[in-house]
Amino acid sequence: MITVTMSKHFLSLLSLSFLLYAGACLATSSEFDRLNQCQLHNINALEPDHRVESEAGLTETWNPNHPELRCAGVSLIRRTIDPNGLHLPSFSPSPQLIFIIQGKGVLGLTLPGCPEPYEEPRSSQSRQGSRPQQPDSHQKIRRFRKGDIIAIPSGIPYWTYNNGDEPLVAISLLDTSNIANRLDSTPRVFYLGGNPKAEFPETQEGQQERHSLPVGRRAGQHQQEKESEEQNEGNSVLSGFSSEFLAQTFNTEEDIAKRLRSPRDQRNQIVKVEGGLRIINPEGQQEEKEEEEEEKHRSEQGRNGLEETICSAKIRENIANPARADLYNPRAGRISTANSLTLPILRYLRLSAEYVRLYRNGIYAPHWNIDANSLLYVIRGEGRVRIVNSQGNAVFDNKVRKGQLVVVPQNFVVAEQAGENEGLEYVVFKTNDRAAVSHVQQVFRATPADVLANAFGLRQRQVTELKLSGNDGPLVHRQPQSQSD
Amino acid sequence: MITVTMSKHFLSLLSLSFLLYAGACLATSSEFDRLNQCQLHNINALEPDHRVESEAGLTETWNPNHPELRCAGVSLIRRTIDPNGLHLPSFSPSPQLIFIIQGKGVLGLTLPGCPEPYEEPRSSQSRQGSRPQQPDSHQKIRRFRKGDIIAIPSGIPYWTYNNGDEPLVAISLLDTSNIANRLDSTPRVFYLGGNPKAEFPETQEGQQERHSLPVGRRAGQHQQEKESEEQNEGNSVLSGFSSEFLAQTFNTEEDIAKRLRSPRDQRNQIVKVEGGLRIINPEGQQEEKEEEEEEKHRSEQGRNGLEETICSAKIRENIANPARADLYNPRAGRISTANSLTLPILRYLRLSAEYVRLYRNGIYAPHWNIDANSLLYVIRGEGRVRIVNSQGNAVFDNKVRKGQLVVVPQNFVVAEQAGENEGLEYVVFKTNDRAAVSHVQQVFRATPADVLANAFGLRQRQVTELKLSGNDGPLVHRQPQSQSD
Amino acid sequence: MITVTMSKHFLSLLSLSFLLYAGACLATSSEFDRLNQCQLHNINALEPDHRVESEAGLTETWNPNHPELRCAGVSLIRRTIDPNGLHLPSFSPSPQLIFIIQGKGVLGLTLPGCPEPYEEPRSSQSRQGSRPQQPDSHQKIRRFRKGDIIAIPSGIPYWTYNNGDEPLVAISLLDTSNIANRLDSTPRVFYLGGNPKAEFPETQEGQQERHSLPVGRRAGQHQQEKESEEQNEGNSVLSGFSSEFLAQTFNTEEDIAKRLRSPRDQRNQIVKVEGGLRIINPEGQQEEKEEEEEEKHRSEQGRNGLEETICSAKIRENIANPARADLYNPRAGRISTANSLTLPILRYLRLSAEYVRLYRNGIYAPHWNIDANSLLYVIRGEGRVRIVNSQGNAVFDNKVRKGQLVVVPQNFVVAEQAGENEGLEYVVFKTNDRAAVSHVQQVFRATPADVLANAFGLRQRQVTELKLSGNDGPLVHRQPQSQSD
Repeated sequence: MITVTMSKHFLSLLSLSFLLYAGACLATSSEFDRLNQCQLHNINALEPDHRVESEAGLTETWNPNHPELRCAGVSLIRRTIDPNGLHLPSFSPSPQLIFIIQGKGVLGLTLPGCPEPYEEPRSSQSRQGSRPQQPDSHQKIRRFRKGDIIAIPSGIPYWTYNNGDEPLVAISLLDTSNIANRLDSTPRVFYLGGNPKAEFPETQEGQQERHSLPVGRRAGQHQQEKESEEQNEGNSVLSGFSSEFLAQTFNTEEDIAKRLRSPRDQRNQIVKVEGGLRIINPEGQQEEKEEEEEEKHRSEQGRNGLEETICSAKIRENIANPARADLYNPRAGRISTANSLTLPILRYLRLSAEYVRLYRNGIYAPHWNIDANSLLYVIRGEGRVRIVNSQGNAVFDNKVRKGQLVVVPQNFVVAEQAGENEGLEYVVFKTNDRAAVSHVQQVFRATPADVLANAFGLRQRQVTELKLSGNDGPLVHRQPQSQSD
Repeated sequence: MITVTMSKHFLSLLSLSFLLYAGACLATSSEFDRLNQCQLHNINALEPDHRVESEAGLTETWNPNHPELRCAGVSLIRRTIDPNGLHLPSFSPSPQLIFIIQGKGVLGLTLPGCPEPYEEPRSSQSRQGSRPQQPDSHQKIRRFRKGDIIAIPSGIPYWTYNNGDEPLVAISLLDTSNIANRLDSTPRVFYLGGNPKAEFPETQEGQQERHSLPVGRRAGQHQQEKESEEQNEGNSVLSGFSSEFLAQTFNTEEDIAKRLRSPRDQRNQIVKVEGGLRIINPEGQQEEKEEEEEEKHRSEQGRNGLEETICSAKIRENIANPARADLYNPRAGRISTANSLTLPILRYLRLSAEYVRLYRNGIYAPHWNIDANSLLYVIRGEGRVRIVNSQGNAVFDNKVRKGQLVVVPQNFVVAEQAGENEGLEYVVFKTNDRAAVSHVQQVFRATPADVLANAFGLRQRQVTELKLSGNDGPLVHRQPQSQSD
Repeated sequence: MITVTMSKHFLSLLSLSFLLYAGACLATSSEFDRLNQCQLHNINALEPDHRVESEAGLTETWNPNHPELRCAGVSLIRRTIDPNGLHLPSFSPSPQLIFIIQGKGVLGLTLPGCPEPYEEPRSSQSRQGSRPQQPDSHQKIRRFRKGDIIAIPSGIPYWTYNNGDEPLVAISLLDTSNIANRLDSTPRVFYLGGNPKAEFPETQEGQQERHSLPVGRRAGQHQQEKESEEQNEGNSVLSGFSSEFLAQTFNTEEDIAKRLRSPRDQRNQIVKVEGGLRIINPEGQQEEKEEEEEEKHRSEQGRNGLEETICSAKIRENIANPARADLYNPRAGRISTANSLTLPILRYLRLSAEYVRLYRNGIYAPHWNIDANSLLYVIRGEGRVRIVNSQGNAVFDNKVRKGQLVVVPQNFVVAEQAGENEGLEYVVFKTNDRAAVSHVQQVFRATPADVLANAFGLRQRQVTELKLSGNDGPLVHRQPQSQSD
């Protein structure tokens, strides 16, 4: 009898212990994946896992723990900003590359050590006060539109505003494995103001925020020194300081300091600007043209390095413009690239991007990224993607649709194909500022016929045919007669 | 009955097993921390964990397993060298940055491929022999003093000697996560000679040294080939070779070879030089001035790269000198920086440093390191430091005192404040040779007023006040009337 | 009674559970090793662990999970190619450095964006067809021979052919920890064609290949879309695509497309070329000389960077040639180095190599690699190697023989010694393109005599003797009288 009891006691002890150890070891097992992080037996097309709704927009993120994203060492965010919506100033230790899927907007980023040369007289019809205003001085404001790639260096705060009539939609890459990020692989976004919600709740810090430690245990040894009553009220970096300290340090009234902490702001990270931002003047289009000409002029003069020009550096480039295609086949499609040769700031970010548009039945023939991981995001249309690993296994061979993300690891061979009824349009982020691609067909052309004949057991005539067939380049129009798939 | 016994047997088996697995999994759990190594819910001010006493000084180290240090990927050592003390030649696979807290000294480092141009006649009053000596030829000896930053590249042996009248105190950063370190994150110091004690006993190798394997299992498959009787006698790298082999290879007497292995030397890593090193001549101060002028001259001529000048490269810079402050507010304090622009060898080390002196009630207003982790070490005085993470949590908000180390991870927002009775003096090591800082107040100034008004719900007048208040720069004098805290 | 049963049930449950957790935790424990990957209590000389036999050669690999190889972050492959054997085109995300141990051959590598300037008329005696052929155009073919170092950048496909009379033997380093490899530390070789066997079966992907998942689970969510009947037939990257898709995309007959997938090819990765490759003309030797002169000419004109010359860049250098020794002692031996100064493409690979030949009784005196891990591979002869870690422990002190690999981690002090009856010849791969070495004896010479006297407790006369004895350099002839070991 007593033994039975004991055994039962045993059982529960055992279960508890196992649960504890299982927890520890599961943590391990997920880390194990990370160390062999690119042993992907299959790749999945990924859609966003989490959404944060704000007053004037939506933030969607992919869970960075997807094996595919851990392999590539990146995180992704899709932001939708309503007209007159302002995405509050934020910065990240990881460099960011943003592609504008839809709409237009303006953006300001604050580079340390750069002057504030833009001075605007405040209009007297000012909403918030009636007396004449002092001129406002600030750093350059930059316009952007659909098809632009925008580069945001690590640690640099930027804000974005939708000054158009339709929602502004952008997809952002955070390269957490970039050497510029000296923290761990967790994506982090620091908001300077406002009261943002966590954008990546799956990371441990995000979880911690929800099931948080008692306030008293947060700030080290001397809890009694803290202004703890104010502690958990906001999520911006300024909310971590007491209003008294902020008032002292910014030499301002405590009333203003309290607002800097944004304690109970319910608008989250994208806020509505009633009446619109007044800094946007109608001559904007003109400014934009001048900016591009000035940039062109500057690049013709040659540049001595990033440092000299960082204050005036161009941070965006339109890659969807048909006029600047790097590869074009009128029947199959076109490809444009933004890299550190076309947009020098990318040398500093160590990232580049490619825009691909395949027409109906167009194929981007098998190729691989020589020195980069790549992230393919479908902008619109439909198609099919095939990815093959080093063992000759098709780790992905599926239809893709708008809004899906597909990771193509370095050297994995990939081919894209547009649908029969619709074309396929996608953007590719690459983790190298001069990412190079090798095409199977081009390799065939550059290889002696005898080597190919022996490798594949082909006759001389067949090899010659194979080598010559690649003259049209990697964008191929699929024969309409071969309907079966 | 038998079942009871069995169950009891069970219990002990179970406990043992659990202990074993717990051990394995704890190892895991500590590794788990490392992979998410910067998810710090709070940061602690750290004081040294371990001390090694030597004949003529003291070595104190911080346990590199502190989560804060794992996040920053660095290790720290504080050395105190008595007058006439010699810190024996050592090298490390991690680059080192040393700040001289107190005292003065001389240093020699041996760069491979550089000539030995310094020739000194040996004095005839030589202590150890009476016959006239041959001249001694060696590489340049470098003087340093309080306030100097000294750069030691990875793998380069250096020795240090206190030629002053007071203890020489230095704090050294070992950047174990630097790309120059191709081993793991364990800090390693290789002593060329002497019989040093392990400086980081917490690392596994250090532990292993204490609970070491039987001698016979140490050296691979063929133990019988080893001169095992000599094996465990010393801790310098030369002690790992047999005296017979050393005699052969250095073509010297076996008596000398035995001394090279320093088997039973009890002096540890800092030894006393009876009568003082004779290489230090009174014209030293003169030499030092010439060296600085020569360096100035050289930098004016421009330099083509590190390689050409490595043999004569400047490795130190005084950053405590008030005359060279980069930021100065006569009421609040001053800041000086040593980076690869002022000390080019830092480009190679990928490290930089900052010296900050805050006067009584001075505040270094909230700011963040754009592209570096930083390590704040308090030299003297008292004050308070606040650090806020990406979620707006104050992960550190405490008083700090002399001798404490505080890790400030990349992009975490930090503010320092001197005490009411005493100023605060500290040095900051940064893991980037051109580390840039962004100040919240400066970002406000560079941001259009309308954006700030909408972000924080402020009126136009309030924003104007906020933007203008930042004109005094990031060093702020706290109003004496606001005594409450 | 019932309790006994229960306990027994317990026991098996327990065992099972423990096995499961042990599995998880063993995984952990091996990962733990990796994170402290260079805490090597002893180092072993390693011989290949795995072999793949091909139609015309042999591939041998070292298990990349050896602690020594994990520390160095590299993988190694030894290939033996029979006369007329062709190693099929392959590429790897890790850069490769190849040393030719024996024989001679030709090699083609396909650089993207480079023209195909080499045009050869096809001979009319063509084996596979009788009608006159079109000329074959391809990229440059490069000759190599015994003693050459060959650099293969990451992601670049290359093929090798033995055009000599004896087996061609080569040892290749894959630097999996190189920043060019953006995947994990698993070595990966992608074969463009043929049906290769897995070269590193110990890595998880290799294991997976053997105990593979059901076909239906491989390719993501929509298995029904796959041409699954063709899936597992080959191991080249082309075998992962359907022959129908290949025919479409390469605009070729389905018959040829089927061959591109090489489904049932039994020849593996090295195939026999019946009658020999016809591209090899007798004027080859002449071409080779011209190539070298052209290269010399080009390097005299100076070069502006890798980019401009990548298409014509030299990728090989002979380092066994006695005429180009960097260090030479007629009694002890010689050392030659290939680094980015002598072979500029190595700057891009961040690798270098050293060839060492020690004559009978020759010693390469104690030294360390300042900024690189190194991999010592014994080409021929016999000798002894000693390696000492930071704690003064001899982690390796053994005889070595032809075919063995010894890892020497960064800063570990190493000395090599040839046998009494035979010399010792070895190649060293280093994970830095400008790897620098420091020699203990040279450090002694560059250090003031007084410092050495105090460090080692030596008299002035002894120090002078010690410093002067190093004038002969690091290659030392061991005195024949000291026969004991």
